[in-house]
Amino acid sequence: MKLKIALLAGDGIGPEISREGVKVMTAVCRRFGHEVEFVSALVGAAAIDAVGDPFPEETYNVCRDADAVLFSAVGDPRFDNRPDLKVRPEQGLLAMRKKLGLFANIRPVATFASLIHKSPLREDIVSGADFVCIRELTGGMYFGEKYESDDHAYDTCAYTRGEIERILKVAFDYARRRKRHLTVVDKANVLASSRLWRKVAQEMSRETPDITTDFMYVDNASMRMIQDPRFFDVMVTENTFGDILTDEGSVISGSMGLLPSASIGEGTPVFEPIHGSWPEAAGKNIANPLAQILSVAMLFEHFGLAEEGECVRKAVDASMEAGVSTPDIAPDPSKAVGTDAVGTWISDFIAAER
Amino acid sequence: MKLKIALLAGDGIGPEISREGVKVMTAVCRRFGHEVEFVSALVGAAAIDAVGDPFPEETYNVCRDADAVLFSAVGDPRFDNRPDLKVRPEQGLLAMRKKLGLFANIRPVATFASLIHKSPLREDIVSGADFVCIRELTGGMYFGEKYESDDHAYDTCAYTRGEIERILKVAFDYARRRKRHLTVVDKANVLASSRLWRKVAQEMSRETPDITTDFMYVDNASMRMIQDPRFFDVMVTENTFGDILTDEGSVISGSMGLLPSASIGEGTPVFEPIHGSWPEAAGKNIANPLAQILSVAMLFEHFGLAEEGECVRKAVDASMEAGVSTPDIAPDPSKAVGTDAVGTWISDFIAAER
Ligand SMILES: CC(C)[C@H](C(=O)O)[C@@H](O)C(=O)O
Ligand SMILES: CC(C)[C@H](C(=O)O)[C@@H](O)C(=O)O
Repeated sequence: MKLKIALLAGDGIGPEISREGVKVMTAVCRRFGHEVEFVSALVGAAAIDAVGDPFPEETYNVCRDADAVLFSAVGDPRFDNRPDLKVRPEQGLLAMRKKLGLFANIRPVATFASLIHKSPLREDIVSGADFVCIRELTGGMYFGEKYESDDHAYDTCAYTRGEIERILKVAFDYARRRKRHLTVVDKANVLASSRLWRKVAQEMSRETPDITTDFMYVDNASMRMIQDPRFFDVMVTENTFGDILTDEGSVISGSMGLLPSASIGEGTPVFEPIHGSWPEAAGKNIANPLAQILSVAMLFEHFGLAEEGECVRKAVDASMEAGVSTPDIAPDPSKAVGTDAVGTWISDFIAAER
Repeated sequence: MKLKIALLAGDGIGPEISREGVKVMTAVCRRFGHEVEFVSALVGAAAIDAVGDPFPEETYNVCRDADAVLFSAVGDPRFDNRPDLKVRPEQGLLAMRKKLGLFANIRPVATFASLIHKSPLREDIVSGADFVCIRELTGGMYFGEKYESDDHAYDTCAYTRGEIERILKVAFDYARRRKRHLTVVDKANVLASSRLWRKVAQEMSRETPDITTDFMYVDNASMRMIQDPRFFDVMVTENTFGDILTDEGSVISGSMGLLPSASIGEGTPVFEPIHGSWPEAAGKNIANPLAQILSVAMLFEHFGLAEEGECVRKAVDASMEAGVSTPDIAPDPSKAVGTDAVGTWISDFIAAER
């Protein structure tokens, strides 16, 4: 296979972890005989500094012409608590989602046995939790009509049947590849948009008898996720609820630095760690590259390259077993290694397995 | 003092726990020389069954003419998963909030040392957590313009400056009575309504230098609450975010059956447990009445009767120390007692202290 990858390293620790993603992806492609080409482009604060736009047209073109985007992180403290600034790094993220039509954000929440003690939840509650949050990513209040004056303001949460159907289709398909249990999260007892979600989901679930579909209010879901995370297999919800619930899900595993995500839809799919740009750590070679590296695994799997994905996962597990880890997860922090050393160890492991 | 209390027992376990609230309130009033009169009124499924309306005009009148409402719970499984039914128990709750102008929902999240093992969080993370969630209750998407057809639907999250100011005032006042730390939760990086919230909060915080005010995005807050719940003192947010975060907060304590809440605003204030109507337990004398009883404590405190409130809290603690508890929290479940026995023990304790 021939893969053209747009590299959007972004801000903070972004460039450092991006490099390790490239290393590992290159090693896998060499081993399995794929051709891979990387094209870098600007995004986030880095792009604002360079050209005054967090998602420049040039970057859009690079993404559009690629098979996939390997994204790292955006965000810079210079823009925090500055509501006066009209151009902001996060807008790059939102523009990318909208322009590439990335309507489905997929976030696996997995626990790693060796890290379970890092979870804020009790081990007996969280161990074995393994679910996927699917968040609608181009609709809802994020992109609805807005108004803001000094005296009043509003946002609109709007969904069409078509938007709901396509994201639910992704969710049903995911459930089919897992334990065939789908939980549709909404607030249908209060919101009109949620009632349409529920109606469409009920219709589709009647035509999908091989999947057990249940419905849960978002307030209930936010409780259930910490009381009984093993309940969930695949969860799907609208954009704003998804923003809150996927972040809640990400911390319960205790493995925040290890969780990748995929955003897919009409255009080029994007693979990225769920953690942010961690500006305080930038340039210090201490950031954990595993979430970025595991997004490379998701990237391969997206193209049907299951063995390649598995190869990355195996190498990541091996690095952890060998204790080759950054300070955040090293069993013995005094023996922690740098960002680059983790990436190098993993790509060497992949090369040696050949 | 002379208190006229509207009793809205509602559905499921509502009537059982309501009786225990009345017992305890009567005991306290007797001990402290207050006069109390209770007037019952219909709400929820019980009201739909009787008169076809979950918050009938008659109930509104009873509430309006009372000093406070002691509310229990609404909700009935006959109405679940029946989107075809146009009249629903929850509408009673929403109508009550709107008609009584209850714009502020106040939910203390306290941990009880003897119940900390029931928390899904690790003890070292949750023990000592003690914060108050303040949720705006009559605005946002709950009451904004809505539209729903078979093909598309929308909700509107609208706020005026006045609505934001009055709820923030409640929050600043609460913070002043506690550790003077207020966290304003919003999604100002995406939502116009959140940007107005943040702007108004920033203005008010400049005029309130005795309170440390910080700002947090809602996705971040949902993580922080389980990673570091002791961070929070008073948290304030809009209606929908509050729905999700207050429920998340309620489970981390492990004391769901013990958490009361107050809803205050323009009209008669309402005091109620945060748990629901638990229909499966109705009539079985197994429901925990402590959240209802502690809402009586909040009621007294609302009227400046701090000693009376403290008297209720002391008696509740004593009942737990004595092991006089319902099955959900009894240290030895084989020695658990009924709903009514807990209420009787507590009111006897209060009477005996005289
Ligand atoms: C940065 C922000 C706009 C973004 C969002 O809310 O979608 C982030 O929180 C995320 O979840 O990817
Ligand atoms: C029953 C429902 C309408 C209600 C709400 O969403 O406000 C409930 O969840 C609550 O939090 O009191």
